[in-house]
Amino acid sequence: MSRLSYIDNLEEWASSFHFKHPVKVRFSETDMFGHVNNTVLFTYFEETRVEYFKRMGFMQIWLHDTGGEIPVVADLQCDFLEQLYFDDEIDVHVKVARIGNSSVDLHYMGTKAGRVCFTGRGTIVQISKKTGKSVVWTEEMKRKMRVF
Amino acid sequence: MSRLSYIDNLEEWASSFHFKHPVKVRFSETDMFGHVNNTVLFTYFEETRVEYFKRMGFMQIWLHDTGGEIPVVADLQCDFLEQLYFDDEIDVHVKVARIGNSSVDLHYMGTKAGRVCFTGRGTIVQISKKTGKSVVWTEEMKRKMRVF
Amino acid sequence: MSRLSYIDNLEEWASSFHFKHPVKVRFSETDMFGHVNNTVLFTYFEETRVEYFKRMGFMQIWLHDTGGEIPVVADLQCDFLEQLYFDDEIDVHVKVARIGNSSVDLHYMGTKAGRVCFTGRGTIVQISKKTGKSVVWTEEMKRKMRVF
Amino acid sequence: MSRLSYIDNLEEWASSFHFKHPVKVRFSETDMFGHVNNTVLFTYFEETRVEYFKRMGFMQIWLHDTGGEIPVVADLQCDFLEQLYFDDEIDVHVKVARIGNSSVDLHYMGTKAGRVCFTGRGTIVQISKKTGKSVVWTEEMKRKMRVF
Repeated sequence: MSRLSYIDNLEEWASSFHFKHPVKVRFSETDMFGHVNNTVLFTYFEETRVEYFKRMGFMQIWLHDTGGEIPVVADLQCDFLEQLYFDDEIDVHVKVARIGNSSVDLHYMGTKAGRVCFTGRGTIVQISKKTGKSVVWTEEMKRKMRVF
Repeated sequence: MSRLSYIDNLEEWASSFHFKHPVKVRFSETDMFGHVNNTVLFTYFEETRVEYFKRMGFMQIWLHDTGGEIPVVADLQCDFLEQLYFDDEIDVHVKVARIGNSSVDLHYMGTKAGRVCFTGRGTIVQISKKTGKSVVWTEEMKRKMRVF
Repeated sequence: MSRLSYIDNLEEWASSFHFKHPVKVRFSETDMFGHVNNTVLFTYFEETRVEYFKRMGFMQIWLHDTGGEIPVVADLQCDFLEQLYFDDEIDVHVKVARIGNSSVDLHYMGTKAGRVCFTGRGTIVQISKKTGKSVVWTEEMKRKMRVF
Repeated sequence: MSRLSYIDNLEEWASSFHFKHPVKVRFSETDMFGHVNNTVLFTYFEETRVEYFKRMGFMQIWLHDTGGEIPVVADLQCDFLEQLYFDDEIDVHVKVARIGNSSVDLHYMGTKAGRVCFTGRGTIVQISKKTGKSVVWTEEMKRKMRVF
């Protein structure tokens, strides 16, 4: 499988993000090889995705006590373009790449001092907490995702 | 991008693993949605991969003080087929899918009570600690990976 | 504050544990100083405490959907007697030190190859999920904690 | 052992901090009980302590390649005064409570909207990476800790 299969043109792709969230590497996120442990980037993905969904008003719906739906991760992938280190300041960018009936494909990009250091993508599905089955987006939700 | 693009035939693929490592979901690995947080599976991947590399004698080389090489993760992906919960007992399977000059493509499969609950893949590259450049496998290392 | 204030006589104290749970240090639990990150031991405490409470039948009550009570951590402390490293095999011991009305004081001890490498203690309180107020133990629960 | 044994007068103690670091609770830091998992606060302690040591110029010394010393945690304790939740914005305060020959006792306080939600303390010891033995502070380091 070729890497970066979800990116046609890196420059074009990189310039298409309009939402970013800053993170700073914690000491506890390094490992004995001296760099950031690979599992940590998925935490950055989640933190950024959650901020993005908050901005769209989605988290508020999903976290509401009587809300019957939650978002679940269907798949995730990350390409590690360069090693990251303790105290690095990173901007994590996220965007909607494709909207499905009950799912959305998100793309991620990490930049350090303006240079791309990791990329990624993954599908989120809205499901019913009770049945575990997927639940279609409302038109309002689709509209918000398109606008963002 | 279609999911499970790295699997031609699931049954055939699932039966081709010969190494597994048991993990049990920790309470601290759950999140407020009541299931295992998505970032945790990559920790299971790493734990299993490390046991696999120990069995092949590779970790011993990489962790040796005077060793100049370390393995780094070039990319990772995971498909979450079902939600996992606190106290679940999971077998994480790993296998070599393709051997490159200085890299190896690993496939992962999680099973719970014999049922596949997640799959994944990712490339590991051997690099020089000093230069950060990739370092080709020795013939002995390639032989071991082929045998395993 | 003197260290180990919760231990009168280390030998006597160490011999009073009757429950232990094995853990093996994960690669992702190390940090760039080459040893296990300090925050990780509290994960081991929790994993062991949870196994202990499962043995007593308490987790089953707390995790039951209609159960109104959950255990929360009121305080925790850990004394790090020696550094731990990747792949170390550790036995984490736990015991009931004092039973309160709605709380229980637990003591912890980590041993590596029979040598004590960390000690700790902490209070768990049973509270109502709804009100957040403490809920007294049933006589049956107290009896089980005394027997264990 | 009485709780908060390291605090004589809470109001006086709370007003004696002069360094704080903001953290925001990540989704992945919650657990299935719906609140922040107890182990996470020690990560906040570390993140804040590291920022504090950076401000004093200590991290720069310890992280320098040729530096022979590193700080290790000798003990840690935390009192959880109230439950924390996803998205909570917390200020973590830290201060030097006592300076030893090669160690320093730090106190921690977490506040949410100005209200104290957790407190803690712990000793850090400077050791030699090579021998593992404690290494006394230089006069310059002691001076900086006193001033801060």
